[in-house]
Amino acid sequence: MLKDEVRTRSYMNAIVQNKHIFKDKVVLDVGCGTGILSMFAAKSGAKHVIGVDMSTIIFKAREIVKVNGLSDKITLIQGKMEEIELPFPQVDIIISEWMGYFLLYESMLDTVLYARDKYLVKDGLIFPDKATIFFAGIEDGDYKEEKIGFWDNVYGFDYSPLKATALSEPLVDTVDLKAVVTDPVPVLTLDLYTCTTADLAFNTPFTLTAKRDDFIHALVSWFDIDFTACHKPIRFSTGPHTKYTHWKQTVFYIEDVLTVQNGEEVQCKLDVKPNDKNRRDLDIEVDYSFQVNDATRNASGHSAYKMC
Amino acid sequence: MLKDEVRTRSYMNAIVQNKHIFKDKVVLDVGCGTGILSMFAAKSGAKHVIGVDMSTIIFKAREIVKVNGLSDKITLIQGKMEEIELPFPQVDIIISEWMGYFLLYESMLDTVLYARDKYLVKDGLIFPDKATIFFAGIEDGDYKEEKIGFWDNVYGFDYSPLKATALSEPLVDTVDLKAVVTDPVPVLTLDLYTCTTADLAFNTPFTLTAKRDDFIHALVSWFDIDFTACHKPIRFSTGPHTKYTHWKQTVFYIEDVLTVQNGEEVQCKLDVKPNDKNRRDLDIEVDYSFQVNDATRNASGHSAYKMC
Repeated sequence: MLKDEVRTRSYMNAIVQNKHIFKDKVVLDVGCGTGILSMFAAKSGAKHVIGVDMSTIIFKAREIVKVNGLSDKITLIQGKMEEIELPFPQVDIIISEWMGYFLLYESMLDTVLYARDKYLVKDGLIFPDKATIFFAGIEDGDYKEEKIGFWDNVYGFDYSPLKATALSEPLVDTVDLKAVVTDPVPVLTLDLYTCTTADLAFNTPFTLTAKRDDFIHALVSWFDIDFTACHKPIRFSTGPHTKYTHWKQTVFYIEDVLTVQNGEEVQCKLDVKPNDKNRRDLDIEVDYSFQVNDATRNASGHSAYKMC
Repeated sequence: MLKDEVRTRSYMNAIVQNKHIFKDKVVLDVGCGTGILSMFAAKSGAKHVIGVDMSTIIFKAREIVKVNGLSDKITLIQGKMEEIELPFPQVDIIISEWMGYFLLYESMLDTVLYARDKYLVKDGLIFPDKATIFFAGIEDGDYKEEKIGFWDNVYGFDYSPLKATALSEPLVDTVDLKAVVTDPVPVLTLDLYTCTTADLAFNTPFTLTAKRDDFIHALVSWFDIDFTACHKPIRFSTGPHTKYTHWKQTVFYIEDVLTVQNGEEVQCKLDVKPNDKNRRDLDIEVDYSFQVNDATRNASGHSAYKMC
């Protein structure tokens, strides 16, 4: 994860370029991992940094903090945020790299919100403090054939029972910008100062507008992350238009192939919620309806996906 | 896994090119997954095939077997081989794709041996019936620097505590044939008719002989798989000299860089055994000693690796 340059450099810039914000502050790093963000905050003049992580990686983090001479500035605690006791009653700033694939899959946002509500001082800051999910339509004929069509003939056998499974699994992969057929549309914006865990289950209509004559085989989703509290606001995106991140993009194949002309619209509805049985899994449903003055091209459908 | 062409085509050829062997036989498929090997056996004239798998994938396998009209020929059982009851007291042939990374990591070989001892008729056949692990030395300076040297300076911090961790983790990756500096040496050959689970913990000395002047940064390991019971014996390899398989190769970085000349030898000792606490993990130790008439190049060391 440290090797994701876009991610780590964005956090580094957000923290080390803003020493005036971090100076003498008490900082909480939610899900600190190897402690890189905690060390950025310490280097930026924080009075004290508390890093919390459930994983045993925190024992390595302690060694790393020590060899970097920061043990007196950084306290690392192994445990669940909900179960541990912090050495400070309140913190001035929360930093966290909590984002999962498709932003919300196996994300730690609920833990960040818990920490915010319990520990963040009034007018305290959150780094980052804004996240936006986008959708667009993509042309993906070759790869869809390879991923989905594959099951029609597997060494001479009919594997169609696995086709439905393949269609229902969102694919985390990089999408070429040239494949994007529609304008991108934001479908969810989370303000980390005000949002609640209830906001992590949502449904919303959205409209995709074709920007050329092409086919739509799938929808693609990505997210942008904003650090608005910085002196000069910092943003990074995980979209197909910019540099690779380990989050890549998330592709949702639809059953139909939509034949769209420049300017035509596809009406969609998105429904996202944690799975009832396993809260770590994500249920995602997409309705799409494409209605134009050419009945041969009209199509509509409903797809249910599960990230697990 | 079905998409690993080398693997699946080797099994397919071993089974469908040998209808004279499979005709009217009772076949057991250990760890049948989606049922592809069971269907190959059924197509080759087996009287009946029993597929066993612990995973719920077996419910999909049943659907697949059904759409291919083979439900009367193939019985699929979900469960542990050690806990279930087979519908036949004995089987004539065992087929299984049991191999893990580095052959033995998370492999199902112990289950195959259990099935062999309990169910295989005297003079019954096993497909495949031979597995051989190889080692060689490789030049891998750039990648070693990227993987191991990376930790010396991570965004300005000293991450050396993670360097030992990185060195102790065997790396499953593809190795370019051009990187191979020594002749390959077989270090373990398993005859599936006679071997026992005790053979899965082993230690052996071996000698690597340089075939050109170069550096050795790491050892690489791979395995070959043989179906010797076939009319025309079938073998596939997962080595760097042949086509990609999902097993790739396994790389073990050593602390030293050995400066070897053509014909010089590195004496090694390999010790492999399941981890005492977690039998699924694999403890691998390598001793190496390089002694030539040039003291500046002599080196020896001991490395302990863990696959988990």
